[in-house]
Amino acid sequence: MTVFSEFFFGKVSCAKANEIINVNAKDKKLHTHLGVIDVGSTIDFDYGSHIMTNKEKKIFLLPPNIYDFVMKSQRTTQIVYPKDYGYIAGRTGLKNGFKVLEIGTGSGALSTFMASIVMPQGHVYSFDINDEFMAIAKKNLEKSGMNEFVTLSHYEAEKISEYKDIDLVIIDLGDPWTYLDIVYPCMKSGSFVVCICPTMNQIEKLSNYFYSRGYIDSEYVETFLRKIEAREGKTRPNMRMIGHTTYLGFARKVLR
Amino acid sequence: MTVFSEFFFGKVSCAKANEIINVNAKDKKLHTHLGVIDVGSTIDFDYGSHIMTNKEKKIFLLPPNIYDFVMKSQRTTQIVYPKDYGYIAGRTGLKNGFKVLEIGTGSGALSTFMASIVMPQGHVYSFDINDEFMAIAKKNLEKSGMNEFVTLSHYEAEKISEYKDIDLVIIDLGDPWTYLDIVYPCMKSGSFVVCICPTMNQIEKLSNYFYSRGYIDSEYVETFLRKIEAREGKTRPNMRMIGHTTYLGFARKVLR
Amino acid sequence: MTVFSEFFFGKVSCAKANEIINVNAKDKKLHTHLGVIDVGSTIDFDYGSHIMTNKEKKIFLLPPNIYDFVMKSQRTTQIVYPKDYGYIAGRTGLKNGFKVLEIGTGSGALSTFMASIVMPQGHVYSFDINDEFMAIAKKNLEKSGMNEFVTLSHYEAEKISEYKDIDLVIIDLGDPWTYLDIVYPCMKSGSFVVCICPTMNQIEKLSNYFYSRGYIDSEYVETFLRKIEAREGKTRPNMRMIGHTTYLGFARKVLR
Amino acid sequence: MTVFSEFFFGKVSCAKANEIINVNAKDKKLHTHLGVIDVGSTIDFDYGSHIMTNKEKKIFLLPPNIYDFVMKSQRTTQIVYPKDYGYIAGRTGLKNGFKVLEIGTGSGALSTFMASIVMPQGHVYSFDINDEFMAIAKKNLEKSGMNEFVTLSHYEAEKISEYKDIDLVIIDLGDPWTYLDIVYPCMKSGSFVVCICPTMNQIEKLSNYFYSRGYIDSEYVETFLRKIEAREGKTRPNMRMIGHTTYLGFARKVLR
Repeated sequence: MTVFSEFFFGKVSCAKANEIINVNAKDKKLHTHLGVIDVGSTIDFDYGSHIMTNKEKKIFLLPPNIYDFVMKSQRTTQIVYPKDYGYIAGRTGLKNGFKVLEIGTGSGALSTFMASIVMPQGHVYSFDINDEFMAIAKKNLEKSGMNEFVTLSHYEAEKISEYKDIDLVIIDLGDPWTYLDIVYPCMKSGSFVVCICPTMNQIEKLSNYFYSRGYIDSEYVETFLRKIEAREGKTRPNMRMIGHTTYLGFARKVLR
Repeated sequence: MTVFSEFFFGKVSCAKANEIINVNAKDKKLHTHLGVIDVGSTIDFDYGSHIMTNKEKKIFLLPPNIYDFVMKSQRTTQIVYPKDYGYIAGRTGLKNGFKVLEIGTGSGALSTFMASIVMPQGHVYSFDINDEFMAIAKKNLEKSGMNEFVTLSHYEAEKISEYKDIDLVIIDLGDPWTYLDIVYPCMKSGSFVVCICPTMNQIEKLSNYFYSRGYIDSEYVETFLRKIEAREGKTRPNMRMIGHTTYLGFARKVLR
Repeated sequence: MTVFSEFFFGKVSCAKANEIINVNAKDKKLHTHLGVIDVGSTIDFDYGSHIMTNKEKKIFLLPPNIYDFVMKSQRTTQIVYPKDYGYIAGRTGLKNGFKVLEIGTGSGALSTFMASIVMPQGHVYSFDINDEFMAIAKKNLEKSGMNEFVTLSHYEAEKISEYKDIDLVIIDLGDPWTYLDIVYPCMKSGSFVVCICPTMNQIEKLSNYFYSRGYIDSEYVETFLRKIEAREGKTRPNMRMIGHTTYLGFARKVLR
Repeated sequence: MTVFSEFFFGKVSCAKANEIINVNAKDKKLHTHLGVIDVGSTIDFDYGSHIMTNKEKKIFLLPPNIYDFVMKSQRTTQIVYPKDYGYIAGRTGLKNGFKVLEIGTGSGALSTFMASIVMPQGHVYSFDINDEFMAIAKKNLEKSGMNEFVTLSHYEAEKISEYKDIDLVIIDLGDPWTYLDIVYPCMKSGSFVVCICPTMNQIEKLSNYFYSRGYIDSEYVETFLRKIEAREGKTRPNMRMIGHTTYLGFARKVLR
């Protein structure tokens, strides 16, 4: 069964290591921190059932979702994290049918997520100048099944101008302001451009360009995610936390 | 034009107050902090164009998106904010085709967002015990056009049991643990339940129930959003910030 | 009694508004959100006792501390907050006997706090170019009784060079890098300079100067403070929070 | 020279590892990540001067301050961090002359800091029930020279009652509410008690006790510290951050 060909080995509640495994491709053993399991024997298992390791520990079988695919993807560059791409979706109104133009494919994490939201009627057109990155992004997209809704192309400014009625532009390159004029003619009026800016300098420089290039309602944000250890009588935040992923810059196209 | 019947008056880059206005329904003047505009005269304007107020200030016309509808919705209860519902989407893999079961409709903010992601093939089944809230949620959903993808019903435990193959359960009531057994039979194996928990006590209590009720991979998080004032030579975070909205509890159903 | 001449009206646990009152100077009524009290009648009260308002609410009498004086001080500029000056003390080893050189007195909040820590054997030498600010800082310092340990002077570069064996330099002006050469000869080897930098641009520019000017171990931080509403069964963070006060830049002098 | 007997090897601006070294006690080589240095040869060096390692890297000599002693102290328990003890000082008005009563010495980090602020006229009376911890705290205090201002004693409730006119009480044990009645008679009216509470449950439980035990103005806070990487053209927050150290509960004694 094809739905079943991609496989996810979950965990009991405290386990940390996960693996997304293609059962058909693997007939050998899987070594986990909870012990060894025979992957092939699980081929007919339903999601939600479990297998015992040789150490008598339970490992549950779960279907991988977009989050799992992104977090387990092969990475060439710093990926955009769920707290950030989730906010992008929430802020821009991303939904089925959106035509998304992405400049800077990277590892394809953001492309994967956006494709999952805009499909089946929408599409992501993603461009990068690094062909090596593109090859890895292609693999990641295939693994998650989102490749059908993403077209990867080598970036050239002229190619971009062929696109029209784009509902959302994402720029994930170091100099996002460079692309504001290039993507402008492709965008629907009132639609968002979102720039992924790891540094303060980038959002500051970006803020100089938006209004003069025909974009208003600019907004720059940073999101944080903190995990909580919820346990009877000793609930407290986790001591480990990612201090920074990226800033996000948003603006909407108007008529010049 | 129906697409045009809902209208959004944007702002110049520094303006703060917005209004979503139905042009057909309003032929009177709109008073804004930038001056007065004649709403009716904009009926044939394209999105992205602008009108001058009587104070010679530009006001741009923008199409409202899901964010605008949610943030401008009529509120009966504390709404779930974009930073939170965005993370829910990013964490659970919410996408087109998902059947979502929501216990606790409230003002319909979360229903509106989820409908926008799961449509056209998915659907949100939302329940509340407060009929007054439901009436307001209904209006909010109609305003955003998402009512087509959301079924609102008065909550009764027996009704819930009729649903099958649910891809995501959201519980936004004060005692989410009460519903874990009720929604369990409705859920696909491996799917997520997400609980909206404003207090620490709720996530702590919830953590006592998940595993024994057949849910694993529990995770409790809090997200923060901070705006940045990006301006040449004086970039810094905004001094105002929302200190807390809610904690979120996640877990995935397995076979008992 | 002089100890008694400055007075602080505390609050019951949920009250928010406080007043620091000089009992001798006030024989009129004090209007609070809990009702009116007769200030003069409390002159012989011990700290910790209470008076009833005309609305039958309790108001407790508390001795003002440095925090109270700072938070109630008259402000001419943005003050440095307790979370920030507390960290400055914790990071630099501020203690009795320290000779502190401060460039940029502002409202004197930071001078007040530092004086309270370095006294009785230490001293704060504080400079500003704005005489109007200095006049207000002087009043604030007198109110808290810290004026004895702070010398306020109009800033001139030549004056600074007279100081030697300074244990800590604080620069709270918009262009802190300008003063690094000026204060260098005054500082003990190994001592700290701390720069109060509200913007990212300031810490970035500062980072270009430290090493070449003879300062190492540079560190740039931001602190946050979030209040928690602790209440049986519904504990959660406060929804209001200050999103940003200032960045702090630290470095230690070495031999050039 | 005694001032010189404790030694601190600083670092060039990017180095991370520090060592506090007693030059007299060490005539062997010190191995650092920047190479090896001959410790004994530096005995006559001034602070701020540098020595070259065998890898031709500069290592600066800096005098250790309270921060260095605390962060390099031998730890038996989770220590209270500078961001937290700094805020305690800023909030409670800690200063020279304060008599501090500490229940829960732990590794002595907080005792070290408080002693440095209250000395020379104040004193810290610190109690713990774990004699093994006390022995290590004693060593840490001696290393920083603060032992003169701290009296360590094995905790017994009866001993506590002998103290009077205490200006600040710190409780750093798992059940701080247990001690509120015990310390009450020792405290000056209007003075603060501060409870170190790593979990939400502790501050919640504490909030049930304060008012009924004779303490008002209760306040519960959490502080965060984020480092910033300030570098020309690529300034951004550090990706690593401590997500949580502890909550702090404050209240002030009034007459019952």
